[in-house]
Amino acid sequence: MNENEFGGLYRLLAKNKLLELRQELSDMAYPDIAEFIMDMDDDKLAVKIFRILPKDISADVFAYLEPDSQTVIVQSITDSEIERLMDDLYVDDAVDFLEEVPANIVRRVLANTDKETRDIINRFLKYPEGCAGSVMTIEMVELHDRSTVAEAIKSIRRSGVDKETIYTCYVIDEKRHLVGTIPLRRLLLNEEDTPLTDIMSDDEQLIFVKTMDDQEEVAAIAKKYDLLSVPVVDNEGRLVGIITIDDIVDIIDEEATEDMEKMALLTPSEDEYLKTGVFTLAKNRIGWLLVLMIASTFTGQIIEGFENQLATIAGLTACIPMLMGTGGNSGNQVSTLIIRGLALGEVRIKDYFRVLWKEIRVSLMVGIVLAVANYGRMLILNLMGSETSSSVILVVSLSVAAVVVVSKTIGCTLPIVAKLLKLDPALMAGPLITTLVDTISLVIYFSLAKALI
Amino acid sequence: MNENEFGGLYRLLAKNKLLELRQELSDMAYPDIAEFIMDMDDDKLAVKIFRILPKDISADVFAYLEPDSQTVIVQSITDSEIERLMDDLYVDDAVDFLEEVPANIVRRVLANTDKETRDIINRFLKYPEGCAGSVMTIEMVELHDRSTVAEAIKSIRRSGVDKETIYTCYVIDEKRHLVGTIPLRRLLLNEEDTPLTDIMSDDEQLIFVKTMDDQEEVAAIAKKYDLLSVPVVDNEGRLVGIITIDDIVDIIDEEATEDMEKMALLTPSEDEYLKTGVFTLAKNRIGWLLVLMIASTFTGQIIEGFENQLATIAGLTACIPMLMGTGGNSGNQVSTLIIRGLALGEVRIKDYFRVLWKEIRVSLMVGIVLAVANYGRMLILNLMGSETSSSVILVVSLSVAAVVVVSKTIGCTLPIVAKLLKLDPALMAGPLITTLVDTISLVIYFSLAKALI
Repeated sequence: MNENEFGGLYRLLAKNKLLELRQELSDMAYPDIAEFIMDMDDDKLAVKIFRILPKDISADVFAYLEPDSQTVIVQSITDSEIERLMDDLYVDDAVDFLEEVPANIVRRVLANTDKETRDIINRFLKYPEGCAGSVMTIEMVELHDRSTVAEAIKSIRRSGVDKETIYTCYVIDEKRHLVGTIPLRRLLLNEEDTPLTDIMSDDEQLIFVKTMDDQEEVAAIAKKYDLLSVPVVDNEGRLVGIITIDDIVDIIDEEATEDMEKMALLTPSEDEYLKTGVFTLAKNRIGWLLVLMIASTFTGQIIEGFENQLATIAGLTACIPMLMGTGGNSGNQVSTLIIRGLALGEVRIKDYFRVLWKEIRVSLMVGIVLAVANYGRMLILNLMGSETSSSVILVVSLSVAAVVVVSKTIGCTLPIVAKLLKLDPALMAGPLITTLVDTISLVIYFSLAKALI
Repeated sequence: MNENEFGGLYRLLAKNKLLELRQELSDMAYPDIAEFIMDMDDDKLAVKIFRILPKDISADVFAYLEPDSQTVIVQSITDSEIERLMDDLYVDDAVDFLEEVPANIVRRVLANTDKETRDIINRFLKYPEGCAGSVMTIEMVELHDRSTVAEAIKSIRRSGVDKETIYTCYVIDEKRHLVGTIPLRRLLLNEEDTPLTDIMSDDEQLIFVKTMDDQEEVAAIAKKYDLLSVPVVDNEGRLVGIITIDDIVDIIDEEATEDMEKMALLTPSEDEYLKTGVFTLAKNRIGWLLVLMIASTFTGQIIEGFENQLATIAGLTACIPMLMGTGGNSGNQVSTLIIRGLALGEVRIKDYFRVLWKEIRVSLMVGIVLAVANYGRMLILNLMGSETSSSVILVVSLSVAAVVVVSKTIGCTLPIVAKLLKLDPALMAGPLITTLVDTISLVIYFSLAKALI
């Protein structure tokens, strides 16, 4: 459903046929209803539509709204409506919402939340961003280790409507330690009198994360084991929450975005582009640009030291951008592959020598092809009127090949070294590779020029 | 579980205690068993371990093996073992496997597959890579639109063990048209005599894709609606398969990797880095490097045309790399944000003017900060012995600011223009931005130099 399909809804709204509108809306999927509400330019209309939603779906729709719209709505509804809303929201959605809205809204919302939920939310809000605890929810199916399949199914039927997922059930002992997991499917396909302990996954198959584990870790585990939810335990092994696959999908997107941003020399932002202020955007970009500008003092000095030769030998200066560009691009190609490979677990530190050996061969092939192509390119330019001497053409072509080999070697080495030093490969590799490759490219170029011209 | 934890298994293997090893393995999760098999250096050992696995889990483990290991195993097992394996594999896993292994293996496997499965697999293998049909599977729960909840649950209990997921059930009419979906949860939480048509999602809530839809589309829909599986219909609206969330997660990772590769000027590869041959890697990299090397002829020509001034005015040449680097990095920062925003649906074409207005303000801030910093940097260099004239320092600083503004404008415009022209933003933006920004940076620099020195 896209915005063009809201036509019928707008007609009902314009004619103020609210009962019919409510009927139409309640037949729609929650994300589409949320989209319709966010499509309103007028805050009052947004609130009006939110209020005519059937009570049993309004919290579900609310969870899909962007923070701006959530703020608008919470500012306009009554305390008792807030109370009901907070009662119906899953804890993870409530926490997501409270993390994004202004402090005065948070205060008002928490004041209208029952004490138990408020305590849980306050605890969740304290988890550092990006750890398992900060993205988990508490609405999971807990089964007791002395139950049978029939008792378990009965308990799910009784409480399942309030759970975020019922498809993986968690078995706990009397001290709330996580002792096993059972997919709902296995419950349904087993005899009613089977004890849960006979069919649950335990010991070696028991997969979980701890509250302070990195969310990236959570996503990796869910991917590896194809889980629909990952249980979270505290330091004593007690079950405290679960992270569901829809949130894991968001984490996967977030982590990829973050890596792309780091590789593009940006400080990762917490928000979507259009929702980030101009000042924050500028701040996120200035850092690395400044560092690299200052680092470029090296290349500047190298060029200054060679200025006399550059001034006298025609064509030497004109090739500097091409050489540095080729080096940068070529190093970047490898480092991107390696950084992504490390992130997805496809490349590991112990693979370094395999990677290096591969890159040496690849870079020789690429280097030779580019050197030959460059030789041809410069000969053609000469035919078209340039007057570059053959020794300069030779130096530039040899430099291209050497620069490709060096930049690929650096590009595959730095991310793995970063990983080895427990630094972030995406963060460390980009800027350092650029600076190193730029500097070394010039040194190679000028050394070859000195030797051969 | 990581490789260090395989110690106990290796002990049993070395002592040839195969019964105990089999027992240990059958207590483990499938991905871990697969990892243990892939950890063998000796193909014979890998096959030996695969063969001692309990029959009911060997297909599940097989699905988690990498194509190399799958090939080794299929080459060593008997025809009847292959028959059983193909019988137990889900169709999507069978197709994945057959797409990756050598043709002679494919022939042998298909010869030992029953006709019905073979026909389905052959049909699936024909779908172009990257479309919904190529990633779907056929083991879904189909319910008939005249059934009740009780009948549905009975049917799931009877056939559910062979389904890839039972958590979303698909309701079809007598002509196999998809008419509704029901989460298993809703089945369990409703009375037994409720007709399915009363509780299924239909009409506006019915979400599906067609066989030829792009897999990126499938991932976007699954994310938007938080689906555990997406139904696939043919052109007549008949249900032909489903795509499950574990495959959608893989698609999300693949698409992000592909975008990163394109932004890093690589032809996306189909395989993981370590599994891609040296020749393919070289081929994937040479293309853009060649194009950009040839494009650099422009910058070379511009510099040649200005060679006399560069030769006579000290310090002018030394700043070329810094200026071009700053322009490239600064354009790259924006284009990455916009390309990713477009991919995630956070930025749309109609947002262009908002984006542009944002970028103009951001780039002015960034440009001014960098210009001032550069002015300071060059003054300090002069204090340390450089002899750059104050007019050169002024020209370089003004150029930095101008280059930032121009590169950010280009960086935010090109990806959106690409999207508008239905081209791939990631593919088109990178190389074009680099070339444009490089050329324009130099033109600005030299124009300012001419005007002010």
